[in-house]
Amino acid sequence: MTDERFFEEYELGSTRRTTGRTITEGDIVLHAGQTGDFFPHHMDAAWCATQEFKQRIAHGTLVFSVGIGLTASTINPRAMSYGYDRLRFVKPVFIGDTIYSRVEITDRRPHPKRAGHGIVVETVTVTNQRDETVLVCDHLHLVERRVPLAAADNR
Amino acid sequence: MTDERFFEEYELGSTRRTTGRTITEGDIVLHAGQTGDFFPHHMDAAWCATQEFKQRIAHGTLVFSVGIGLTASTINPRAMSYGYDRLRFVKPVFIGDTIYSRVEITDRRPHPKRAGHGIVVETVTVTNQRDETVLVCDHLHLVERRVPLAAADNR
Amino acid sequence: MTDERFFEEYELGSTRRTTGRTITEGDIVLHAGQTGDFFPHHMDAAWCATQEFKQRIAHGTLVFSVGIGLTASTINPRAMSYGYDRLRFVKPVFIGDTIYSRVEITDRRPHPKRAGHGIVVETVTVTNQRDETVLVCDHLHLVERRVPLAAADNR
Amino acid sequence: MTDERFFEEYELGSTRRTTGRTITEGDIVLHAGQTGDFFPHHMDAAWCATQEFKQRIAHGTLVFSVGIGLTASTINPRAMSYGYDRLRFVKPVFIGDTIYSRVEITDRRPHPKRAGHGIVVETVTVTNQRDETVLVCDHLHLVERRVPLAAADNR
Amino acid sequence: MTDERFFEEYELGSTRRTTGRTITEGDIVLHAGQTGDFFPHHMDAAWCATQEFKQRIAHGTLVFSVGIGLTASTINPRAMSYGYDRLRFVKPVFIGDTIYSRVEITDRRPHPKRAGHGIVVETVTVTNQRDETVLVCDHLHLVERRVPLAAADNR
Amino acid sequence: MTDERFFEEYELGSTRRTTGRTITEGDIVLHAGQTGDFFPHHMDAAWCATQEFKQRIAHGTLVFSVGIGLTASTINPRAMSYGYDRLRFVKPVFIGDTIYSRVEITDRRPHPKRAGHGIVVETVTVTNQRDETVLVCDHLHLVERRVPLAAADNR
Repeated sequence: MTDERFFEEYELGSTRRTTGRTITEGDIVLHAGQTGDFFPHHMDAAWCATQEFKQRIAHGTLVFSVGIGLTASTINPRAMSYGYDRLRFVKPVFIGDTIYSRVEITDRRPHPKRAGHGIVVETVTVTNQRDETVLVCDHLHLVERRVPLAAADNR
Repeated sequence: MTDERFFEEYELGSTRRTTGRTITEGDIVLHAGQTGDFFPHHMDAAWCATQEFKQRIAHGTLVFSVGIGLTASTINPRAMSYGYDRLRFVKPVFIGDTIYSRVEITDRRPHPKRAGHGIVVETVTVTNQRDETVLVCDHLHLVERRVPLAAADNR
Repeated sequence: MTDERFFEEYELGSTRRTTGRTITEGDIVLHAGQTGDFFPHHMDAAWCATQEFKQRIAHGTLVFSVGIGLTASTINPRAMSYGYDRLRFVKPVFIGDTIYSRVEITDRRPHPKRAGHGIVVETVTVTNQRDETVLVCDHLHLVERRVPLAAADNR
Repeated sequence: MTDERFFEEYELGSTRRTTGRTITEGDIVLHAGQTGDFFPHHMDAAWCATQEFKQRIAHGTLVFSVGIGLTASTINPRAMSYGYDRLRFVKPVFIGDTIYSRVEITDRRPHPKRAGHGIVVETVTVTNQRDETVLVCDHLHLVERRVPLAAADNR
Repeated sequence: MTDERFFEEYELGSTRRTTGRTITEGDIVLHAGQTGDFFPHHMDAAWCATQEFKQRIAHGTLVFSVGIGLTASTINPRAMSYGYDRLRFVKPVFIGDTIYSRVEITDRRPHPKRAGHGIVVETVTVTNQRDETVLVCDHLHLVERRVPLAAADNR
Repeated sequence: MTDERFFEEYELGSTRRTTGRTITEGDIVLHAGQTGDFFPHHMDAAWCATQEFKQRIAHGTLVFSVGIGLTASTINPRAMSYGYDRLRFVKPVFIGDTIYSRVEITDRRPHPKRAGHGIVVETVTVTNQRDETVLVCDHLHLVERRVPLAAADNR
């Protein structure tokens, strides 16, 4: 479960795919309870039946949290998550849908200020059981370099 | 709890501040259980005692989910969340910290393709009980316009 | 979310209606876990199928807790809940039912001993998605007076 | 766990005492999640530290639900709960307090309309580990009579 | 709920049967969250649909924990659980199945080293709503003797 | 996360060690809720303070479920869990203890009836942060053989 990897060892274009997770009614109930978001879109089946999707939809933050959690299988002691860019909800996730995450290394760039670290971007694509994309985002990791950049290289 | 508002009615620079939420050990346990992320940074107090922060830290997705959940107090039937930009984890959140969200309308722009909608950007700043910023992000909402743009205006 | 209101400002007959909440199987499981009430009426679907209602029913304390929770949307720093009268379970709530609470101010009376406070009674009526009443109760609040009663007025 | 008992067999003044239950921080978090009541009195330790009690307090509905759950140890197939009277919150319950319920049969009366049933009232007194009363209520049960009242007796 | 019983008072061949518990989807979600076991057999309905059983199955440790929990109705202050032998998963448990435990005292033997205690073996048989056995195990209890064995008797 | 391995490929004496998991108060609360075991040893801190250990202890089934869950990191599609032998609770686990599992392949034997499968025994030793053993058990797996035994070999 631990896989030490330095910045230089991340390979652009390499991909991995996670196991799947069915989003259950209980997940939505627990996520509402954790976040305090009890909007009727998630919690009121009767009202949802009168709306466009005819049913409750998972919270965006739930799909995101589970989609990212699926990718957390290997610990790299040289890396830490420090943010996300361009997170988009592409399609709704309904109760009973199963989601999977695909991760691709899409960027490797110097850190603007730290010569000893670089930024590795994993683009995460979350799909459902019909292989439709439901969420995409860029996950940014701060990763230690094996060899720090010479000061001059670091812009 | 419902407050209908069209794109034209969002005011740049307006702000609101939420109630607070103490992040408990139980929240971390539940979030690990929901996401499947059992990394020792969150779940192994003995190992954490040997690390830089000396204690367990909340998952990034937990701080984000609760921070956003705090802002979900008023339903606007004319708006829907469709994503986030520039989400950054600024400082760790520890067990017992209390977080608050401040929301500011920082952008209102035409939607690139839909004349009937615009994009409203809420910049969310999550702070702890010492008023230190722990997370920032831009929350993007797709909001119906009261008056659709003429085709010519919509670039 | 904060709305300061003194005793004198509660208006007899004023009403409000909450958003809805679907009672899920997961809610019953969690409530059993929280209360320790694992009676077969809530937990044994096979046995329930042989009984009058043919299905599991929500705990009374669950319907009550959620029904009251729905009303907890605005904090009044001048009021505190101190009890309930005439709580009655009128109809069973089944898995998948959606409940709503209607609140009406039905009484405003002096506190028997405190000149600085009065008692405001909110009658809470919990209904399901077929608009059938499932639970009623009187929620008693101890509310600060803007102007304390003169001793002589306090009966 | 099943103890069949008819109305006639409830003895006025008989009492029983339950096992205890420590109210944990996790119980408050779960109850907030179940009910949607995230008032700062329960969820914001930093704010609570500035208030009278200096700490978070358990939800009234939590103390009530657990206090009643503690009494649900024996199933009587001839009885059903149908409500509560005079529920009062006497003292706050804090994280780490342990509560116990004492039950006393305080009333046995005819049902106003049903000759085949009577009403049995259990007065429930919930105390903490310092034997202070924190909650009281009258729990009303509808219990089948072994021998229905003659019509004339039923007023 | 407390029933003091010494080693000498356990009767070989005596049996008891518990109430039932429906295993819900939420139970599986919570158990995955508690144990960190997110194997697709339990969590991925789409994948399960392609496998032998066509549906998700409950974790073995869940069926065991609930099956044993059902037997925990009476506290004997003279006994403590110290292990299990021959725990076997006989049939899968699916979402919606209801399980029951039958307990039989199948052995009473001296403790190999402690003259003051004996070992009582409860054979626990967990069945589903079709009376099929799903799990069996021998539950070993260390129980105080009313009369300690003379040293010579204790082999 | 998938690692296909046949019976022949399990190596006697090979070991692995899992990440750690701190057992929190919330875990005990959730496990009580899942199993219905609310014995005061786990749930009543005031009573526990008067007992030998002076504090609440984790349920045996909780330590077992988490200890086994920690080992569930790699899916072998050729193997299935079918039981446990000699499960023993060696020392109590308290709130705040961190547990780890060590797994050793201690036996590989023919299945008594199936020529196509063998039994692989993993001895699981669960230790705490002081490296004291708290639980041991033998986990039995039914594993497909790459080459079925000839009928004559299978006794």
